[in-house]
Amino acid sequence: MAAENGAERPKKQLIVNAFVMMCSGHQSPGLWRHPDDESWKFGDVDHWVNLAKLLEEAKFHGIFIADVLGGYDVYKKSLDPAAISGAQWPVNEPLSVVPTMAAATKSIGFGVTVSTTYEEAYHLARRLATVDHLTKGRLGWNIVTSYLDSAARNMGRKEQVAHDDRYLQAHEYLQTIYKLLLSSWRDDAVTLNRTSGIYTDPSLLRPINHQGRFFSVPGPAITAPSPQRLPLLLQAGTSRAGKLFAAEHAEAVFVSAHSPQVVAKNIAEIRTLASEKFGRDGKDIKVLALVVPVLGKTEEEARAKLKDYRQYASTEGALALWGGWTGIDLEPYGDEEELRHVESNAVRSTVDAYARFSKGGEKWTKHTVAEHVRLGGNGPLLVGTAEQVAEELEVWVEEADVDGFNFGYVLFPQSFKDIAELLVPELRKRGLFWDDYVVPRGTYRENFYGKEGQKYPQETHVASKYHWKAGVPANEHQIPE
Amino acid sequence: MAAENGAERPKKQLIVNAFVMMCSGHQSPGLWRHPDDESWKFGDVDHWVNLAKLLEEAKFHGIFIADVLGGYDVYKKSLDPAAISGAQWPVNEPLSVVPTMAAATKSIGFGVTVSTTYEEAYHLARRLATVDHLTKGRLGWNIVTSYLDSAARNMGRKEQVAHDDRYLQAHEYLQTIYKLLLSSWRDDAVTLNRTSGIYTDPSLLRPINHQGRFFSVPGPAITAPSPQRLPLLLQAGTSRAGKLFAAEHAEAVFVSAHSPQVVAKNIAEIRTLASEKFGRDGKDIKVLALVVPVLGKTEEEARAKLKDYRQYASTEGALALWGGWTGIDLEPYGDEEELRHVESNAVRSTVDAYARFSKGGEKWTKHTVAEHVRLGGNGPLLVGTAEQVAEELEVWVEEADVDGFNFGYVLFPQSFKDIAELLVPELRKRGLFWDDYVVPRGTYRENFYGKEGQKYPQETHVASKYHWKAGVPANEHQIPE
Repeated sequence: MAAENGAERPKKQLIVNAFVMMCSGHQSPGLWRHPDDESWKFGDVDHWVNLAKLLEEAKFHGIFIADVLGGYDVYKKSLDPAAISGAQWPVNEPLSVVPTMAAATKSIGFGVTVSTTYEEAYHLARRLATVDHLTKGRLGWNIVTSYLDSAARNMGRKEQVAHDDRYLQAHEYLQTIYKLLLSSWRDDAVTLNRTSGIYTDPSLLRPINHQGRFFSVPGPAITAPSPQRLPLLLQAGTSRAGKLFAAEHAEAVFVSAHSPQVVAKNIAEIRTLASEKFGRDGKDIKVLALVVPVLGKTEEEARAKLKDYRQYASTEGALALWGGWTGIDLEPYGDEEELRHVESNAVRSTVDAYARFSKGGEKWTKHTVAEHVRLGGNGPLLVGTAEQVAEELEVWVEEADVDGFNFGYVLFPQSFKDIAELLVPELRKRGLFWDDYVVPRGTYRENFYGKEGQKYPQETHVASKYHWKAGVPANEHQIPE
Repeated sequence: MAAENGAERPKKQLIVNAFVMMCSGHQSPGLWRHPDDESWKFGDVDHWVNLAKLLEEAKFHGIFIADVLGGYDVYKKSLDPAAISGAQWPVNEPLSVVPTMAAATKSIGFGVTVSTTYEEAYHLARRLATVDHLTKGRLGWNIVTSYLDSAARNMGRKEQVAHDDRYLQAHEYLQTIYKLLLSSWRDDAVTLNRTSGIYTDPSLLRPINHQGRFFSVPGPAITAPSPQRLPLLLQAGTSRAGKLFAAEHAEAVFVSAHSPQVVAKNIAEIRTLASEKFGRDGKDIKVLALVVPVLGKTEEEARAKLKDYRQYASTEGALALWGGWTGIDLEPYGDEEELRHVESNAVRSTVDAYARFSKGGEKWTKHTVAEHVRLGGNGPLLVGTAEQVAEELEVWVEEADVDGFNFGYVLFPQSFKDIAELLVPELRKRGLFWDDYVVPRGTYRENFYGKEGQKYPQETHVASKYHWKAGVPANEHQIPE
């Protein structure tokens, strides 16, 4: 596709996902009260089927479904603010709806958040492989380690596993999943040979005998190789442990911050780690930034929309979400109290960090925190015409070296309709977005990397060495330790 | 509907489910080699959508999906016989496909097997509620406690939990699920009141604070009340502990045996226990017997089909399945050796028990065991015209007091097409089967009990006392201990 705005070098082709969650409002608590919002219909399967069709028509790469396993009960030490405002409460289980969206579409992918902390690897491996089969290879897995005590307590733990231990455990969990899904069956183990009567060739199937610090799993996987064998791996950690994890395991990384400058360093660091520690090309980790566009045919129309939306946004919901994300309860503080000067170290350092990754606002108060979060959550609101928003997206690409975007919504599905109708054509005009899937009816990974045949992880990805490929004798493929 | 064969009292209206599994062959190992069999296409979503449409057209009450979490590796102490013959190997996860089948249909229900042994109750409660939402209340849950060591080892256990402990644990697991799904939200807790800004009324939502021997779950459930709140509860245990469990918890019980006489006593015992120990009407436990019809327009045609099918049935697969079901490896014995006379107590008593519940065969050998299992598994093959098969079904109703049937298949989907085209009309002619769903677009429970409005468990069912109903103040509904 030719760049039409006079750029001298070919532009990066953007990867575009929708960012949703199986709850109401997602990053915009309170917006369910808007007369045009339908996000509260998330329990209805048609809601999801219609979204998938809309976004496939617009040629989105994927639909990315966030998830949490517990409620946001840090703010006011209560679940009430989240319940009242509908801030990510209630929440349904996201993997359940993916095959139905896939059955109604052909090419769009589905990234689903699943935690490594509360489910046996063998159990999850089967669920992932099943959905990869049912979607014909269009599944992605956003690997999270879970951060809510409210979830941990309901899973029979007193509290969550310590942060760094969660990553150690997640690392071993991934190894176990790799062994189950990539090492225990050869690509061509299912022979369905009616003459010899061999369904699965037992010489192409083997145990994994995984014995680690956290898990003991003899295997083999109970599922046959699925089209991608392993879902596309997505991850969003930003701590040191999280970055190392991403550098080794992630094929896509999500970032959320209010300006590109504050994530540029993290992105560069992950890519450097990938290259220096794990022998990967840093560019093979595709980085997607959360942005929340509010689009109008004119800037005036966009501003009017924003003003309209603001009436419905919930401050209590925002403080509930922020409390869950940070573990900090802002209830005790005054609306206008400068939080970077309060007595509590924890509050000061958390707000300091938040201030660094957020744009604007010299003063950080309960009020300004809520203002930042209540529309678009941790993503920046990009308000304006398609041209203006596209301009801002190009700044993100330029300054933070991102490869694409997760588009969050304010109104469901209107925000996505606006993106499809206004923004996508503008991105195409600028040579930033494809006209069609590179591999129609292909796998998520093929369309994500824009490369036909890239069904499995790249050769340089750690999972690749676990992959027992068609034709390779068992003694020529050792399962990595 | 008038009975047309001269019966004096109105006949029991049969409950009819299809019995399938997310694998090839299910109860008929080896039949994937038959040119007309498509059971090996189980990884394709269309396979399931087409089945759901076919069976809804025939007005089946439900589709019942069996499941196992491990391979059958007792026979020959190896997974190879199961892998080669495709005997329930590989196996996908069944809950994943249900919403897609539901999206393509309106009224048929879906019973899915999920174990209480390897997944946190809070986690499963969310998965079940989500699918009950997505199916608009058409989910059933077949509660199993798992019986395969091969599954236990992969879930990080050295071996499975001891049998009676599994039931104690399952009992507490159910209590936890009841509390989460029925007690923590009031029916009408989600108010979506746009004027007051209240999404969920926090006074209609409460923790469960479950502290038991096995589980500690504070709650509340993360999911809003689904149409049935609790899936229809199905169960199949036949041990003493299993019968007690069924008498208390089951709304439907499955039996599988080769003749009605051998299950009649068990059925009567469960119903008596339900009435004497749990204050239920024994008739409210609906009993479904596994049968596997082989239908022809003439008896000759049916016999010819059977003969044709026998060529493809796998003896090795049958012995693998039987080994997994019983824990007994028959490899060491001769094909014609009388197993009730061998040295091993375990083998003698297992084969004795098997002989009691199977029809025919004075001598029990490896050969006769395999013959019994390899077509139709533990269910009887009913071979003949629709009239002949319907006659036999009436014997089951008469002698064992069953309420309906789980129809297993030999060929997928041909066996179900035969049932729809030949047997269903015959059952209707005899006044045994409805013309349409009692509640089109209703819930599984309503159609299962044939009673509009019966969305939730009956008042006499143990779960009912956990149910926090619309309009009831919190202090008037105590969560049972």
